[in-house]
Amino acid sequence: MKAFAFIAAAATLLAFAAPASAQFAKPEDAIKYRQNALFVMAQHFGRVGAMANGRVPFDANVASANAEIVATMAKLPWAGFVPGTDGNTKAKPEIWTEQAKFKESSDKLVAESTKLAAAAKTGNLEALKTAFAATAGTCKACHDAYRKE
Amino acid sequence: MKAFAFIAAAATLLAFAAPASAQFAKPEDAIKYRQNALFVMAQHFGRVGAMANGRVPFDANVASANAEIVATMAKLPWAGFVPGTDGNTKAKPEIWTEQAKFKESSDKLVAESTKLAAAAKTGNLEALKTAFAATAGTCKACHDAYRKE
Repeated sequence: MKAFAFIAAAATLLAFAAPASAQFAKPEDAIKYRQNALFVMAQHFGRVGAMANGRVPFDANVASANAEIVATMAKLPWAGFVPGTDGNTKAKPEIWTEQAKFKESSDKLVAESTKLAAAAKTGNLEALKTAFAATAGTCKACHDAYRKE
Repeated sequence: MKAFAFIAAAATLLAFAAPASAQFAKPEDAIKYRQNALFVMAQHFGRVGAMANGRVPFDANVASANAEIVATMAKLPWAGFVPGTDGNTKAKPEIWTEQAKFKESSDKLVAESTKLAAAAKTGNLEALKTAFAATAGTCKACHDAYRKE
């Protein structure tokens, strides 16, 4: 009985010590979650970019709606980078060996995409272009450092 | 030249007539988008459900944060149900033959998940349970009608 109680207590402690991992039923879910969140974000970011780059006419309402979604989605993927989920993905091991730097990287996206949403709301295309470029820069910096080719 | 101008005009008209489809570079992107948005939503909805069903202790802040994400994500997947994207997925053809009913179905999820986010914000577990059940009901009704086994 004592051994069982000890194991149960240890399991409980572990669950509390690893809240991020505990959010997903299995490691594959964590991988799928972060990939899916990034894909959804990229779709909306691409629509803002199409306007910032003049490929489609600027529509402030559409830009703002999409940028809002980008800013919300930007917060999500990172919880999916649970330790031990680097196999068979483009995630570089540095994500887990440089956790503080990786977090700094994702925090930058969150900050810049929030500015992007604010810029989109002003209806000023030049402001949108500037904020789009800054946000895209955070994507690229993080991909360069932490995504395999 | 006249034929070319006609085709160009027709293509423009088509693009404007099908704005949802025009949002995606290719049909596979539309399918991936809706599936990914639904998966991300389901992860967060599951976390609210774990509290509503007593599987994990109720934490009002966590419930509220997750319910907010559910309410945002609930609006997204439907744009991905572009005509002609029913092959090799669980999407039933009725989605496209009963578009008004399908929209009614997804509108219900948007409405109930908005109520869920509001209920979570009150910090009242009973209100959360009620709103969770109502939201889950809209998932089930839509899956029963429009998702293949």
